[in-house]
Amino acid sequence: MRAYLISFLFISFFSLNCFSKDLKIEKVEPMFWWVDMKNPSLQLLIHGDNISEYDVSVNYAGVRIDDIIKTDMPNYLFVNLMIKQGTKAGHFDINFSLDGKTKASYQYELKERRENSAKRIGFNESDVMYLLMPDRFANGNPNNDSVEKLTDKFDRENPDGRHGGDIQGMINHLDYLKELGVTAIWSTPLMEDNQPTVSYHTYAITDYYHIDARYGNNDDYARLSAEAKKRGIKIVMDVVTNHCGSAHWWMNDLPTKDWVHTFPEYTNSNHRKSTTNDPYVSKTDYDKNFNGWFDTSMPDLNQKNDFLVTYFAQNTIWWIEYADLGGIRIDTYPYNDKHGMAVICKSIMDEYPNMNIVGESWLETPAEIAYWQKGSLNHDGFNSELPSVMDFSLFFAMPKAFNEKEGWSEGLIRLYNSLALDYLYADPYNLLIFAENHDTDHIMSTFEGDIDKYKQLMTFLATTRGIPQLYVGTEILLEGKKSDGDGVMRIDFPGGWEGDERNAFTAEGRTEKENEAFDFLKNLLNWRKENPVIHTGKLMHYIPEHNTYVYFRSNEDKTVMVVINKNEKEQDLKLNRFEESMKQFSSGTDVLSGKTYDFSNGSISLAPNTSVILELK
Amino acid sequence: MRAYLISFLFISFFSLNCFSKDLKIEKVEPMFWWVDMKNPSLQLLIHGDNISEYDVSVNYAGVRIDDIIKTDMPNYLFVNLMIKQGTKAGHFDINFSLDGKTKASYQYELKERRENSAKRIGFNESDVMYLLMPDRFANGNPNNDSVEKLTDKFDRENPDGRHGGDIQGMINHLDYLKELGVTAIWSTPLMEDNQPTVSYHTYAITDYYHIDARYGNNDDYARLSAEAKKRGIKIVMDVVTNHCGSAHWWMNDLPTKDWVHTFPEYTNSNHRKSTTNDPYVSKTDYDKNFNGWFDTSMPDLNQKNDFLVTYFAQNTIWWIEYADLGGIRIDTYPYNDKHGMAVICKSIMDEYPNMNIVGESWLETPAEIAYWQKGSLNHDGFNSELPSVMDFSLFFAMPKAFNEKEGWSEGLIRLYNSLALDYLYADPYNLLIFAENHDTDHIMSTFEGDIDKYKQLMTFLATTRGIPQLYVGTEILLEGKKSDGDGVMRIDFPGGWEGDERNAFTAEGRTEKENEAFDFLKNLLNWRKENPVIHTGKLMHYIPEHNTYVYFRSNEDKTVMVVINKNEKEQDLKLNRFEESMKQFSSGTDVLSGKTYDFSNGSISLAPNTSVILELK
Repeated sequence: MRAYLISFLFISFFSLNCFSKDLKIEKVEPMFWWVDMKNPSLQLLIHGDNISEYDVSVNYAGVRIDDIIKTDMPNYLFVNLMIKQGTKAGHFDINFSLDGKTKASYQYELKERRENSAKRIGFNESDVMYLLMPDRFANGNPNNDSVEKLTDKFDRENPDGRHGGDIQGMINHLDYLKELGVTAIWSTPLMEDNQPTVSYHTYAITDYYHIDARYGNNDDYARLSAEAKKRGIKIVMDVVTNHCGSAHWWMNDLPTKDWVHTFPEYTNSNHRKSTTNDPYVSKTDYDKNFNGWFDTSMPDLNQKNDFLVTYFAQNTIWWIEYADLGGIRIDTYPYNDKHGMAVICKSIMDEYPNMNIVGESWLETPAEIAYWQKGSLNHDGFNSELPSVMDFSLFFAMPKAFNEKEGWSEGLIRLYNSLALDYLYADPYNLLIFAENHDTDHIMSTFEGDIDKYKQLMTFLATTRGIPQLYVGTEILLEGKKSDGDGVMRIDFPGGWEGDERNAFTAEGRTEKENEAFDFLKNLLNWRKENPVIHTGKLMHYIPEHNTYVYFRSNEDKTVMVVINKNEKEQDLKLNRFEESMKQFSSGTDVLSGKTYDFSNGSISLAPNTSVILELK
Repeated sequence: MRAYLISFLFISFFSLNCFSKDLKIEKVEPMFWWVDMKNPSLQLLIHGDNISEYDVSVNYAGVRIDDIIKTDMPNYLFVNLMIKQGTKAGHFDINFSLDGKTKASYQYELKERRENSAKRIGFNESDVMYLLMPDRFANGNPNNDSVEKLTDKFDRENPDGRHGGDIQGMINHLDYLKELGVTAIWSTPLMEDNQPTVSYHTYAITDYYHIDARYGNNDDYARLSAEAKKRGIKIVMDVVTNHCGSAHWWMNDLPTKDWVHTFPEYTNSNHRKSTTNDPYVSKTDYDKNFNGWFDTSMPDLNQKNDFLVTYFAQNTIWWIEYADLGGIRIDTYPYNDKHGMAVICKSIMDEYPNMNIVGESWLETPAEIAYWQKGSLNHDGFNSELPSVMDFSLFFAMPKAFNEKEGWSEGLIRLYNSLALDYLYADPYNLLIFAENHDTDHIMSTFEGDIDKYKQLMTFLATTRGIPQLYVGTEILLEGKKSDGDGVMRIDFPGGWEGDERNAFTAEGRTEKENEAFDFLKNLLNWRKENPVIHTGKLMHYIPEHNTYVYFRSNEDKTVMVVINKNEKEQDLKLNRFEESMKQFSSGTDVLSGKTYDFSNGSISLAPNTSVILELK
């Protein structure tokens, strides 16, 4: 059934059945849709020479045209379809006529939805998310390293070039990720980025409905999702609404004049996100932040345009439905027009109430980050409708927490103080927590390869509140520094390429230290997976003292005590301070070592630089 | 009339007319009160041997006893009086009787209020506040340097000893402060602190109704206020509700068992204010923060006790009314029970709707600070009723803003980013802004005496939004480092003592550089005083670029452009970026140098390291 479904999708995807007479329909997007969506409306973007002069009609039971909208650009029409509940899946023609004569038809398809598609569950507190850059992960199909129609060719010697990693490479290593205990994969974007250079990061998208051919095709992406699902892994798509690539097809002929922000002369974003709610902001600074471009290669899209908003809402829903996704990550969230984005998020969440969307919210303080989470108490009443945001406050705290010597404001207290501001969030358990990503130093560079710090960090990430996000390679202590350049930092995974010196996807290909790191994390994550107490259990933490940070996760079934221990010598941890969390328990068993600690003498002995996760009894 | 009033107050203050029979009334507090207060209720704390066994009665037209309340301590009674509107000022006996026989009487007085007392206007955006420590400012009366009944004696050689500064010293230098342009004086506490050592800071109060005799007496304080008022200067009283001194008279016999927080063993505050709203906090950490003691010499008062709350509300109102105060500063605000403090603040503001109270809110981020300002949008619906808080976020930003080389996140951008979060405050214009206080390094130590940085800072402080607070001595570039010890850092003002090597209160006693600093600030503050546009005018600022931070204050009458300029060489400032703020203006005149800048060629030339404040035309 699955195989049938996928090939069905595959065929239909490529059947751009356009019977041209004297009108050429360049684009109809979304290329197809589904029946029985909760939202019966569908807005088609139609691109063709002087298409705005044509009449449009359909004839299919349950489908009617609600509106045909001309923009200020002659080669576009937006057609609003209404697809009645109960409409049967099938094909129908959209007819374009002039003076009563049909000049072109486009065969449109409405597909059946997957069973329970609307009820899909997005990534949540039970998950551990693994972020990877597909170009740098594994090259599963050397035949697509360069493709004719895409300008940026394979050049693995060039840090900013295409290295050949692809979807097949990801599929090939799903078992590796499953073994590690990963339950969600966030890959940086896979849609087509046909920029002439530095396209490997794929954040300058040039076609929102097609996977970049150097990664594979749409079907490969759906196959990745299906294969991942077999292994209990959700695929999280990276969506870029703030900007497109300057080589995007619509840049030659925009759907509306205001589709992209323009200035009298080229204007870069000032990247000053503090302008967002600044009561004293000047219009010039504000506009530059929101509407300035990321780069000459990345035109800034205008999310105040309702057509564009609908375009991205539908595009994202299309991919969820098409590729059976388990989550969405939205790039550079606070750079977008917030009201437009709220419409997009709400559209997605209305369609899939248990879905999850996380916005990149690179801001300093919890108050600033919380502004962007759905339901937060905002000064202006704004509700982002975005369920999850990224905990950059904790991100800033983590390296210091484990690198610094303990002090009044240094070390582990940073973790405490960051979490203590969680009252500002509407839903702190639905925060993505991470120590690194593709835009930052690898944490193992920050830790200078120190495996003790790695273990402390992973213990913390895996057991505090929130959804842990790992970055590719840390499980084998991979390093990379931003100061060396993004392309260098985004190092190829060793073993992802045939002929690589070693294959770190296998125990044999890893050093002893790497295996120690991998096995530690594997055991930790696989334990986490089975313990709802860590996902949703109540957190209670204690002010760090004596180089230790102690906290508890508890639910009706279980209480877990975590001791993050930075002491460099063996240390007795007195337990009386924690009485309110542990008075009914007499011992605890460390989930990783299996060692049982007896509480009867009022203290436990901690090995140097070793954290413990105790299941209490 | 004023002289009459003061001597009237003086006499009445000392007329503790207690006609003892066989019961000794130790204390009646407040010692007297006023008619025609908005709140007709008055709760008397009465202390005497087994006073709880006595009946209490009064006989005075308009005054009735509403309630006589025994506590769990036998030597206290709380008596609730109701003073009807229109009651005449005068004296009456409070009679204490046992078995129908009067055993003691206390002659209570109800005074007339000052005209328009209720309408008094507290410090606000039009003011510049000067913080001083009276023991270290000026010794106006060498006769009170040591007094018999107070244990800590004069010892100017000891950094932690009493140095002899007093109220008369403050009075003597009101003209100096007026000349400087100061319009409000916040002196650290002046109430009696009879701790055996280190009493000079006077934060361990041992009698809330009497000025410490080493500073003078209550009348001197009222005289200071009256003399200050003549010079357009408001007196702001430092009120300490969180803790008292361990030598407070009530510590031997508490009014209620729960008057002071106690623990099974002595427990210090953990000073972890992040526990305040922490959703994951343990009770043990939370209680330590709020209820732990500052020091063994500072018992932590329980503001959950309604009698104590009423005691401090009345005590503060008593001082406002008695000494004709222009503002209240409350010490260590977030250590107090917030609900009790809200009652105190509301009581004061109900009585004096135009009054101002600022709480010490030593917290890191605007979100944390804003929680404590009246009317802020809080997650838990809490409303502090505290009109003003201290902008510690800007305090942390300022030294770095002027000391650091400009960078993406360094230098002047810190000021911008801090202010940009003002949306979190209910009333950002009612924030006290400061670069230093008695608990921090002197800013001139941080600046290593750099007068250019001094001028930049003062320009900023005097012209951005908020109420500038200066710290004693900075006007003469006084330095002091916390790392040398508080007592050393809190240096005596040169010239405050007869026989001092020099008198920096006079131009002759100051060095050329000190005079440059003094004159700069004098001109700046006296200009500020006359320009409402700086007090309440709209602020618009621009992202710092090219080592300059440009902002505008504007109202219907005037627009002022401020350029904080850190360039070390002469620099052209292009004006086109600021068009929305200055398009209708063609020139600006610097308020300090008098130099006029013509805007017609689209830029102005800035002298190295020199800020300008331009009145636009």
